[in-house]
Amino acid sequence: MPYQAPIKDMLFVMNELANLQAVSELPGCEDATPETAEAVLEESAKFVAGEIAPLNHEGDKEPSYWTKDGVITTKGFKEAFRQFADAGWQGLQHPTEYGGQGLPKLVGTPCVEMLHGANLAFALCPLLSDGAIEALLTAGSDEQKATYLEPLVTGKWTGTMNLTEPQAGSDLAAVRTRAEPQGDGTYKIFGTKIFITYGDHDMTDNIVHLVLARTPDAPAGVKGISLFIVPKFMVNADGSLGARNDAHCVSIEHKLGIKASPTAVLQFGDNGGAIGTLVGEENRGLEYMFIMMNAARFGVGMQGIGLSEHAYQHALAYAKDRVQSRDLTGSPSGVAIINHPDVRRLLMNMRSQTEAARALAYVGAALYDAAHHSADAEVRAENQAVYEYLVPVIKGWSTELSQDVTRDGVQIHGGMGFIEETGAAQHYRDSKILTIYEGTTAIQANDLIGRKTVRDAGKVAKGLIAQVRATEAELAKLEGADFAAIRKHLSQGAADLEAVVDYVVANIKADIKGVFSGSVPYLKLAGIVLGGWQMARAAVISQQKLDAGDGDASFYKAKIATTRFFADHFLTQSSGIRTSVIEGSAGVLALDIEQF
Amino acid sequence: MPYQAPIKDMLFVMNELANLQAVSELPGCEDATPETAEAVLEESAKFVAGEIAPLNHEGDKEPSYWTKDGVITTKGFKEAFRQFADAGWQGLQHPTEYGGQGLPKLVGTPCVEMLHGANLAFALCPLLSDGAIEALLTAGSDEQKATYLEPLVTGKWTGTMNLTEPQAGSDLAAVRTRAEPQGDGTYKIFGTKIFITYGDHDMTDNIVHLVLARTPDAPAGVKGISLFIVPKFMVNADGSLGARNDAHCVSIEHKLGIKASPTAVLQFGDNGGAIGTLVGEENRGLEYMFIMMNAARFGVGMQGIGLSEHAYQHALAYAKDRVQSRDLTGSPSGVAIINHPDVRRLLMNMRSQTEAARALAYVGAALYDAAHHSADAEVRAENQAVYEYLVPVIKGWSTELSQDVTRDGVQIHGGMGFIEETGAAQHYRDSKILTIYEGTTAIQANDLIGRKTVRDAGKVAKGLIAQVRATEAELAKLEGADFAAIRKHLSQGAADLEAVVDYVVANIKADIKGVFSGSVPYLKLAGIVLGGWQMARAAVISQQKLDAGDGDASFYKAKIATTRFFADHFLTQSSGIRTSVIEGSAGVLALDIEQF
Repeated sequence: MPYQAPIKDMLFVMNELANLQAVSELPGCEDATPETAEAVLEESAKFVAGEIAPLNHEGDKEPSYWTKDGVITTKGFKEAFRQFADAGWQGLQHPTEYGGQGLPKLVGTPCVEMLHGANLAFALCPLLSDGAIEALLTAGSDEQKATYLEPLVTGKWTGTMNLTEPQAGSDLAAVRTRAEPQGDGTYKIFGTKIFITYGDHDMTDNIVHLVLARTPDAPAGVKGISLFIVPKFMVNADGSLGARNDAHCVSIEHKLGIKASPTAVLQFGDNGGAIGTLVGEENRGLEYMFIMMNAARFGVGMQGIGLSEHAYQHALAYAKDRVQSRDLTGSPSGVAIINHPDVRRLLMNMRSQTEAARALAYVGAALYDAAHHSADAEVRAENQAVYEYLVPVIKGWSTELSQDVTRDGVQIHGGMGFIEETGAAQHYRDSKILTIYEGTTAIQANDLIGRKTVRDAGKVAKGLIAQVRATEAELAKLEGADFAAIRKHLSQGAADLEAVVDYVVANIKADIKGVFSGSVPYLKLAGIVLGGWQMARAAVISQQKLDAGDGDASFYKAKIATTRFFADHFLTQSSGIRTSVIEGSAGVLALDIEQF
Repeated sequence: MPYQAPIKDMLFVMNELANLQAVSELPGCEDATPETAEAVLEESAKFVAGEIAPLNHEGDKEPSYWTKDGVITTKGFKEAFRQFADAGWQGLQHPTEYGGQGLPKLVGTPCVEMLHGANLAFALCPLLSDGAIEALLTAGSDEQKATYLEPLVTGKWTGTMNLTEPQAGSDLAAVRTRAEPQGDGTYKIFGTKIFITYGDHDMTDNIVHLVLARTPDAPAGVKGISLFIVPKFMVNADGSLGARNDAHCVSIEHKLGIKASPTAVLQFGDNGGAIGTLVGEENRGLEYMFIMMNAARFGVGMQGIGLSEHAYQHALAYAKDRVQSRDLTGSPSGVAIINHPDVRRLLMNMRSQTEAARALAYVGAALYDAAHHSADAEVRAENQAVYEYLVPVIKGWSTELSQDVTRDGVQIHGGMGFIEETGAAQHYRDSKILTIYEGTTAIQANDLIGRKTVRDAGKVAKGLIAQVRATEAELAKLEGADFAAIRKHLSQGAADLEAVVDYVVANIKADIKGVFSGSVPYLKLAGIVLGGWQMARAAVISQQKLDAGDGDASFYKAKIATTRFFADHFLTQSSGIRTSVIEGSAGVLALDIEQF
């Protein structure tokens, strides 16, 4: 099923909810006018629909594969990546001095969503490069920047993140890979890394591995981890490629989904040691890794949204096309299944969650831009704090809901959905990694509780809730059953979220396990309420546009109806989740391990 | 991961919740004493663990495949099926006069659950034979019974259900397959059937296809469908096999899951006509098909429960084994991940839903037995009505939750869950068919609304709710926070279910599309409330056992804690669902098709 970027909704969210105009007035963002943004989105949409989306199902049928000379990617990927790089898409959000376009995150984000929507497995490679670029921009030496940034930003090379080891999944304290200083400023790296996305491939001449390892005298735990650059091929002073480094892909995984994306086991130092250079300071690797990780977490959230959109389009096309059974109100013969109420409900599930998650993520992107570009340090800090609160929600909630959405997509297809050639099943399989990599949903939820809620005693969360209340006041001014329902459920949602935030802050010390047993439900509640809030804002603005006779009335009416659906079917879950979090830890923790 | 039947919970549910003693006092069920049942379950558990479960992942890796001479099943399936048949498992619930064991459904059901839990793809074949046996017992002629029943009941042959055609998925009104009378009592069948489970295989010498087709002068729509027996090989008067019939498997599907189970496209009559005989009367095929279908729907519900149990055991073993990250309350080194609160929450999600669904299904099986064996016609009718109300709930709810449970199972495995060799992903893939075949969840929900709620104006539903209220009264007699929480949430659940039943009955005429747009949420609500009710009954009984110092205290305490969890985390969803059903149809139906 061909994917088409939902440009209309993207532009609506950028302009009306995320205030692109304000972003384009930030220092350094002046080029990102709404007109430019629209042109960029249209170009990106054309590119992904033409070049990237057609490879999505191909990559599932003919995955990338391992050979002793390296991984061969799915036919067509190499050429597509070359086009992607040559057109400048890798550098969209990166500095112009390294060959990027220097556009704000708010403009880059829809393009990223499109790329993921078109082809998750392909888009992972640029996502990882983005993380490597961010880390080097922040912590790289001048020489490292000079050597690696332009090739990464222009897509000449790609980047990887090497965290996981066989004995240490999410637990970086357990990292064992060694880095031995050679006295010449370089280190020899020894160890095994697993689950390395695009850890090897044939799309570019070189790969820049960023690797967590321990120096000989490093303290135990996460405070003794350093970050190293370990290129696949050494780089000569003139930028040309030198000797093959001792970093080899020994196998790739046979996975449930994203099959075109090679997931490598990388062996460092089996033949004398892989040569690496230290990034930033020794023992601060975790901090730098989090720079990559946070960029990647937002990106994985966009994967969830892009994939949900694709699954929705796929199911929608089928629902309009497939004729089966008469209409409930009577019809002379069978009707397209979109006329059947439960198919309609499933489609609205898919649509409303995708739109809500998109709205929240783009608003997050605008916060990031203000945090990075505002002239006022206080404004920067405020926006950064809110952005950081939202990152685990955007990552965790958007990816969890993508599993609901892709499941609904298969369901709409009926028996055909279970047949692989239909393609709906691929979305369902692909989605399952999104709640796992770059930190499972539980890890996002731990972050939401620990660093994002408890540390400031709920201040940022309460600030967001106050903004939700302001939207409630706007809703109160509007007439009709839709706005009354939206307001009622949003109001209850805000009260429920506030109660949960208060509970978390008040009980974390006395009952840490009890509080953390509600971490994922809290994250889900935050997603529903804050996503619902953005939908409510969208509905208010849509009504204002309708009242003013301004623009596409059908679009605005659909937005209001979709918000109404989201309120009735998702915001209504808030009180149950609140009870589960606040009263539900006893049942979670009651059993002894032997009783399981 | 080896599957072990959860015999302890099965026996508890059979004896304490479904009242096996009472079933064993029904006429014709005298052999099914609790002691016999326990022995049967233990034998069955041993058989499936030893012979069937080991083939589960094998079948996923090496699916059955098509050849021009017929489908070859996964290595080991043929021998396993022979053992299954020879040991008499196919005939467990079927009449002794045809070689069966004649045991009640309440005893057969746990054995069926085990078989599905061990190997869904394998167990599908017996499930379809069960349906064919039921149809022939009800509607077959004496000659047909004499010819086909014993081979089916003893597993010498297997049966299939041939409903679906390419142009007609769930819509049987659109069936086009033709049956032309030959004047000798036989018919020639012409047409194409798709999605035929075990439509061809090499496990038995013959296959008995039950095929829906139209005779030349049949009325249009579902009232013109007749049911035919079309054997793969004709059967001679002495029971030996005759000529190959003109019914051929032309391909099998490449599927998301249950890969060992061949899903066939069957071509009838391409070489002159497949010979068939009419089952029962002309144009009553739909009615007979529903006999098969209802047996199969209950069976598919058991698939959801068996698969959930397997996924739970799989994830539990991993959670106990996998050491990662320190304990939240502090520990010198990493701990098994079962100690982390969110892993615990996911395990309790899996466990509590599986136990609740099992309890409801077994209670349903006991209703079936009373409906079939009670000496009192009124008792039979009452039990039949309640059983029929529960069938769409058992099928729809147990299979939908199996998709949540298998998803949680992958999540607990983290990155390893996404790697196919781990096996957790297979459960996730396998589960997706369960909400589709034998009627999608929407079709179950339509049945729940139309035939099971509206037709009797909610009488059966209200009768069940009255029983829930009686359990609430029992809960009120017990002390402590667990029972208070269970009672509070069950009480609210009953009120919510009642409100929804009232809404459905009151609005079906005036707003049929609005009511049906809440059909699946209504089904889910019924599952949660009725499953929660059974758990509450289990908790009450467990407390009584504890008070009496009777039996395994650890088991009973775990049952109470699991019920508490189910109440806090699932029954708490009831009010939100009620609002979605009663107030949420506007958003479902608001968009014009062009607005999508």
